[in-house]
Amino acid sequence: MKINEARPYVVKNLPYALNPRSIAVVGASRYKSKVGNKVVYELQKWGYKGKIYPVNPRADQVLGLKAYHTLSDIPDEIDLVFVAVPAHLVNSIVHEAVKIKAKMLVIATSAFKEIGRGELQNDITEYCREHELPLIGPNLVGMGSPYMHFNCGFIPYLPVPGPIAMISQSGANLLAALGTSQEENLGMSFFVGLGNKADVDFSEFIEYAEADPHTNVLSIYIEGLDSPEAFVKSCQKCTKPIVVIKVGRSQIGVKAAFAHTASENPETDEYYDSIIKEAGAIRVTTWQEFLDVSLALGYQPTLKGDNVVMITNGGGAGLLSCDHFERLGMPLHELKDISPLLAARIRAYMPMFGSPLNPVDISGTASVIQYKGAFQQALRDPKVDGVLGAICPTAVTDVLGVAKAAIEVYESTKELGKPFLMICQGGAECAEAIKLLREHGIPAYKTAEQAVNAMVALRKAAKK
Amino acid sequence: MKINEARPYVVKNLPYALNPRSIAVVGASRYKSKVGNKVVYELQKWGYKGKIYPVNPRADQVLGLKAYHTLSDIPDEIDLVFVAVPAHLVNSIVHEAVKIKAKMLVIATSAFKEIGRGELQNDITEYCREHELPLIGPNLVGMGSPYMHFNCGFIPYLPVPGPIAMISQSGANLLAALGTSQEENLGMSFFVGLGNKADVDFSEFIEYAEADPHTNVLSIYIEGLDSPEAFVKSCQKCTKPIVVIKVGRSQIGVKAAFAHTASENPETDEYYDSIIKEAGAIRVTTWQEFLDVSLALGYQPTLKGDNVVMITNGGGAGLLSCDHFERLGMPLHELKDISPLLAARIRAYMPMFGSPLNPVDISGTASVIQYKGAFQQALRDPKVDGVLGAICPTAVTDVLGVAKAAIEVYESTKELGKPFLMICQGGAECAEAIKLLREHGIPAYKTAEQAVNAMVALRKAAKK
Repeated sequence: MKINEARPYVVKNLPYALNPRSIAVVGASRYKSKVGNKVVYELQKWGYKGKIYPVNPRADQVLGLKAYHTLSDIPDEIDLVFVAVPAHLVNSIVHEAVKIKAKMLVIATSAFKEIGRGELQNDITEYCREHELPLIGPNLVGMGSPYMHFNCGFIPYLPVPGPIAMISQSGANLLAALGTSQEENLGMSFFVGLGNKADVDFSEFIEYAEADPHTNVLSIYIEGLDSPEAFVKSCQKCTKPIVVIKVGRSQIGVKAAFAHTASENPETDEYYDSIIKEAGAIRVTTWQEFLDVSLALGYQPTLKGDNVVMITNGGGAGLLSCDHFERLGMPLHELKDISPLLAARIRAYMPMFGSPLNPVDISGTASVIQYKGAFQQALRDPKVDGVLGAICPTAVTDVLGVAKAAIEVYESTKELGKPFLMICQGGAECAEAIKLLREHGIPAYKTAEQAVNAMVALRKAAKK
Repeated sequence: MKINEARPYVVKNLPYALNPRSIAVVGASRYKSKVGNKVVYELQKWGYKGKIYPVNPRADQVLGLKAYHTLSDIPDEIDLVFVAVPAHLVNSIVHEAVKIKAKMLVIATSAFKEIGRGELQNDITEYCREHELPLIGPNLVGMGSPYMHFNCGFIPYLPVPGPIAMISQSGANLLAALGTSQEENLGMSFFVGLGNKADVDFSEFIEYAEADPHTNVLSIYIEGLDSPEAFVKSCQKCTKPIVVIKVGRSQIGVKAAFAHTASENPETDEYYDSIIKEAGAIRVTTWQEFLDVSLALGYQPTLKGDNVVMITNGGGAGLLSCDHFERLGMPLHELKDISPLLAARIRAYMPMFGSPLNPVDISGTASVIQYKGAFQQALRDPKVDGVLGAICPTAVTDVLGVAKAAIEVYESTKELGKPFLMICQGGAECAEAIKLLREHGIPAYKTAEQAVNAMVALRKAAKK
């Protein structure tokens, strides 16, 4: 339901959604296959430090914990009530949550507005608002943070710790991102599924993320924007970069967004474009771009000017990149125009058939020493704003050696505040190099276009 | 150098480039770090069955093989002469290759037209043409085929066997694709780097690929098109789908393409667009799309109509997909419009809060049995032209179980000739599912947009 701006009582209570001292899980089942069981199981498994109170009218114990028949039976203050019972039982639980003065209410249950029960959802929302009990959901997957060892929902894994705050209406896409986080070292500060977002709104989590010390970038997946004014206000106040993917732009997508999270899209996609622009956020198109851009904005400084130098041992990666830079409206400049001195110096790190154009092609024979020298020269040149490196696995390329050299140069030039991204296109050794580079804070990508998308986003973020 | 059409003497001899009975490696070094050593090493390592003759004026043995001081010293017929000596020595080797009546000449050496030595390159090319010795290169990485256990060049690995013929001017991008092949089960029939393509042209390899029994799809990376008429003619004659990525479209890219493979791009990018269209080939934009579309065209039948049904346990993946389908000009239709009967039947495989819209959202609680039923109903419905499945890893999803069910349904409905693609967006279990699905011929992808790109390409291929 629409709000005009982020509500202070909601923002004040949001820390209880991600770092509660106590949780009541209503609908905590004894049976392993049930989602209500998974919530308690995952809380325990990932090392939640607070108290867990399973609530189940037909159980005395769940997963070794004493269970309570009702919320009111719990002899403790409850910060967070997590609801995973069938939809027709939810209303009475909400009233009880208000009664016990819970700080935060999360309704995971589906089958509300998205299947035509808008009135029931609105009634619950209004009741919560009247009693200033912030409600997240309904119809969501959960939330968590690797820093808090907190995994609260139907969520098989925590992400690796890092700077990305992920705020997503879709549970499945959120889960996918968490899986990617583990597989590809995409570090997150916290994550939350908003589902139907009946009450708590994007704007309020944006203010939470702004204050969160672990967060460097906000990554927001939107299916519908009920409160565009509040969104714009909170984004404009936010000093951290914000990446947005907004779906439901196609004809069938408008219907699918309603069927999924009861999201309404009364406006054209151009309207959302303009809202996101006004907010100063960066809109991306594909899910891959969403992850790739988030990674770069999370780990790297923004790009202060257009002078990007690309250093590669593969002319092909260079060509894919420079075409894509131009496609995105930020063409590469020739090295001799950026810095004639650098163009001359960099010659020392390539064979005669290399090319100092930009992309700088130090050739397929490039050694670790040549890479290191070229990286150093480029990053240290005062005319250069950012560097994009690329490794292709020729038969003589020491892929991991180059990755280590890149890390060394990056660490010794970090104080210059210039973004440094890498492309490692190839097989197993490249996957390993990507992991290693990411562990050291260098966003590394499998294809040229992914890295270019990220670099261009770093430029946009500088212009906010 | 320009040709008007594929030359019969070249096409006739190309099998000697990928399945030679004997190879002379000129410039075979004794020193492990040298590229000339790698060529012999990789031929041996990957199990080449023919004869290898190292040629080196200063060595009697290379990697355990008798070495010859000159080509003429070899007491055998030579099918393929592979040249990896410095540029100034190449000309005399070419004359010798003609003298010994080699069937095929490959010049890996760089530093020809791409650094301004166009005249030297043209002289060599004209000499080869005069003597009907087809020349591949110069300035290339090599070629090979997993079916022939043939790895000939500076190439650290063979791809896994499969239906994709990859013809690439860029060596580094080719190597990257070979690495991806191993990592992500992207099966190839053969691959070849063309480099500066002074003599042997795309058109001639297109005719070779058309005749190759292992090839189902041709994937071509182009930096410059010297002989557009020959390209169009050979493509039009080819009965197999052709995917093209053409770079060098940006301002700096035109220069980079010349510096890399001496490729000239005198025409606008729109011209190449029209040439590729006239050829009946499918042009893609990014490297990822190039690989993804190649995979689908290699393994799946074309999509005979627009009626694609998407089945997902995540509404988010559904939304990303339907937006992307519309973005690409092929919007999904609602299930009730495609087949009212199917819309009713598929209800049996989802909870009440699922959505039979299309994307069909069988919800995050979907079991293997529900997936299987939904896949079966969709694939067997005569109104449905193709199916796109998606798995998101919720806490109750049996990702590998669903993948196995998908394989079972696919195998039992294969004779219907409908394409079946999958999305598995998530962590380790999704990566495993993707591998498994690909092993069974189902193109599976990490993100929604990748699969949609592939499905739309299958439709384009049907319209050729």
